[in-house]
Amino acid sequence: MKFEVPVAITEIAAYIGAELVGDNQLMASGINEIHKVTPGDISFVDFEKYYNASLNSAATIIIINKKVDVPAGKALLVLDDPFSAYVKLVKRFRPFEPATKSVSDSAVIGEGTVIQPNVFIGNHVRIGSNCLIHPNVTIYDHTVIGDNVIIHAGTVLGADAFYFKKRAEREVMYDKMLSCGRVIIENDVEIGAGCTIDKGVSGDTIIGQGTKLDNMIHVGHGVVIGRNCLFAAQVGIAGKTIIEDNVILWGQVGVNKDLTIGKGAVVLAQSGVPGDLEAGKVYFGTPAEDARARKKELNWIKRIPEIWEKVKGI
Amino acid sequence: MKFEVPVAITEIAAYIGAELVGDNQLMASGINEIHKVTPGDISFVDFEKYYNASLNSAATIIIINKKVDVPAGKALLVLDDPFSAYVKLVKRFRPFEPATKSVSDSAVIGEGTVIQPNVFIGNHVRIGSNCLIHPNVTIYDHTVIGDNVIIHAGTVLGADAFYFKKRAEREVMYDKMLSCGRVIIENDVEIGAGCTIDKGVSGDTIIGQGTKLDNMIHVGHGVVIGRNCLFAAQVGIAGKTIIEDNVILWGQVGVNKDLTIGKGAVVLAQSGVPGDLEAGKVYFGTPAEDARARKKELNWIKRIPEIWEKVKGI
Amino acid sequence: MKFEVPVAITEIAAYIGAELVGDNQLMASGINEIHKVTPGDISFVDFEKYYNASLNSAATIIIINKKVDVPAGKALLVLDDPFSAYVKLVKRFRPFEPATKSVSDSAVIGEGTVIQPNVFIGNHVRIGSNCLIHPNVTIYDHTVIGDNVIIHAGTVLGADAFYFKKRAEREVMYDKMLSCGRVIIENDVEIGAGCTIDKGVSGDTIIGQGTKLDNMIHVGHGVVIGRNCLFAAQVGIAGKTIIEDNVILWGQVGVNKDLTIGKGAVVLAQSGVPGDLEAGKVYFGTPAEDARARKKELNWIKRIPEIWEKVKGI
Repeated sequence: MKFEVPVAITEIAAYIGAELVGDNQLMASGINEIHKVTPGDISFVDFEKYYNASLNSAATIIIINKKVDVPAGKALLVLDDPFSAYVKLVKRFRPFEPATKSVSDSAVIGEGTVIQPNVFIGNHVRIGSNCLIHPNVTIYDHTVIGDNVIIHAGTVLGADAFYFKKRAEREVMYDKMLSCGRVIIENDVEIGAGCTIDKGVSGDTIIGQGTKLDNMIHVGHGVVIGRNCLFAAQVGIAGKTIIEDNVILWGQVGVNKDLTIGKGAVVLAQSGVPGDLEAGKVYFGTPAEDARARKKELNWIKRIPEIWEKVKGI
Repeated sequence: MKFEVPVAITEIAAYIGAELVGDNQLMASGINEIHKVTPGDISFVDFEKYYNASLNSAATIIIINKKVDVPAGKALLVLDDPFSAYVKLVKRFRPFEPATKSVSDSAVIGEGTVIQPNVFIGNHVRIGSNCLIHPNVTIYDHTVIGDNVIIHAGTVLGADAFYFKKRAEREVMYDKMLSCGRVIIENDVEIGAGCTIDKGVSGDTIIGQGTKLDNMIHVGHGVVIGRNCLFAAQVGIAGKTIIEDNVILWGQVGVNKDLTIGKGAVVLAQSGVPGDLEAGKVYFGTPAEDARARKKELNWIKRIPEIWEKVKGI
Repeated sequence: MKFEVPVAITEIAAYIGAELVGDNQLMASGINEIHKVTPGDISFVDFEKYYNASLNSAATIIIINKKVDVPAGKALLVLDDPFSAYVKLVKRFRPFEPATKSVSDSAVIGEGTVIQPNVFIGNHVRIGSNCLIHPNVTIYDHTVIGDNVIIHAGTVLGADAFYFKKRAEREVMYDKMLSCGRVIIENDVEIGAGCTIDKGVSGDTIIGQGTKLDNMIHVGHGVVIGRNCLFAAQVGIAGKTIIEDNVILWGQVGVNKDLTIGKGAVVLAQSGVPGDLEAGKVYFGTPAEDARARKKELNWIKRIPEIWEKVKGI
């Protein structure tokens, strides 16, 4: 997430109560997760094993729980609990604004777009032209929708990321990360009924141009889906996964987080994808593997009794 | 879909810009997919391999992309892109009518039926008597619901078929088929919360009398479900499949398109049904097979190490 | 379910048309299923094989279809169809009250709680303080929500149990049990978008303090979930199952009814849980078993061709 205007690092430090180490003239441009940061951004790190990745990332300002050497041109904000400090910044710079009506006055809706009854459109939403938003759809704040998009009834765009920090020592063990990313739906996308597309934690969840989603599809926070993909009903995709153009996922496929499915790959129904898939191939099974190899395996299983007959006397 | 009154074939030909070949006195009674056509209907075909099936179907008028011999008593409407011509006819004869209120004035609702708040009821919907429609349900235009039906909250009846034509040469690759079928819910059906029942492309999606659906069940376009079926939560059924009476599907079962599940069959939880299932049997697994045979297979798999012990020295 | 005030057994007997056998001075305190009854409650039994369990349960009053010996201090209500008599009592003592507005006047909502637009809140609902209820959520009558709870858009709390009695001899074969239990959401729970949490048949469905649910999760009637659990998207849990504290279920896991998952167990994505799971272990597969053992099995399957090479000449 980018701030509307850059914010002085000294103001940030004071706000979260951190010790500022390094360049105190820096201006922060936004707050972002490690895989989304660009120069000027604030990021945070609270595990020693990720210190190097964070310090060497594009982030200019790092909220950190130990005073370490500062890379040139960067600054640290040192305090005990970087996670909570980061959440505090999200609350300040992207505060939740309760709605006062079903379609926010701050929403911008393009020409020729039809909004059916009982739709909720939050603050700062932008919807392009010639869209059709069916009844009982919920569009959270800051969502961006292109032109010629169809959203079927009951679908939810922009709910919070499912992202918690475990605090084993507390009675309420999971501490909520506040999401400040958005959902971006590009032109010519169609989304079926009863889908849920979560916003990114700090970056955006993106559904690429011309992609078509059937009903009851779950897309986790920060997922990036390419162009002209086709997903059948009840598919689920976990956070931050990348799905390239022209990918086809059949019904009830589950896809793990933080992986990439290559261009034009096809995953057959009910498969579970645990890791990266190469482009252009067909996959099946849990875990998903080459579909032909997997189907051969199913045949081999049927031959175990035959093998047993041969060896039982040994 | 049937037209309200028959339409002269010459009017159809002029509207879509087709060359009329054959009997020019015909009156068209409706538009339908190949598996739903009845005499008088218009159908379309754009792949040479389906020409014969289409020409020999009950359809009287065939929109086609090649001038071929016309069967007696029929007519062809010849043009380059039958798919787009068909969509154009759907748009004309079943145009989308944006709603002006949450419950359309053209909806007919029977005596004793309770409509809870925040329900959307579209144009030309018919709901019988003594039904209970819970909050936030969406009922698209032209849906028909019988008597004594219960629909739980958040369920969506009549969203569009997930049906696209691939146009590999275009930047936006998938071309949307417009659906003009309906959803028909017969008497004494109960549908759980968060379900999605899509309308048929040209025919109807039907849920038979006394059938009970748990929550979050997806029923694809044109599916026909018999009487007294029982489906547990999160079942998904792809387009045009036929499920006969008394079928039981347990939780998270996935059923492929264009197949038939015979009367009284039972499919155990999480199974995936790739093809027809015989009546009266119990099935399990992906792909779903006889449940007892499948469970034996699972036991055989556990014995592979024992087999290996016998043969490793060979 | 407990009655607001105790009801004389003679009044109950007259209302359902039963023969009263045993102590006719008893006062009934509520109606409950066999696994939920406490002294004073009415329960019912209609299968001979469950007679003993019912008569020896904590229930004080048993609706039964045969005149049997009455345990001391109890009473029987004898009639032909205990199921229908029980349903009749539910209808009388917890009648469905159609809503007259989107947020019932009888709902109690705590300080600092934000209710977004298009939410339905039924009769006798209680919501604590500092909650955030997102748009298009449906909260059925009698639901109880604690403090600091977040419910995302489109979620449905308190739909009816999926519970029917089969009447093979009738045209409409499944006879609906009316649910009179509640949904209880404890403090600090977050529930994602598009979830469905059913009410209990007579007891309560409970989600324990600090538990976090991702999107599109189905929780069946009477399920009891402990504290600080974490369930990923598209998980489904069937009726009356008990899930202890700190359990983690990954995406698309399915859990059968009437079982217990022990404290701290982890079930990997897409697994199917058919029976009890021990505490503290990691499970995988359908049926879910020890994850490491299951993964070894998958490797053994890949070695079948190697085994075949060794034995094919035998």
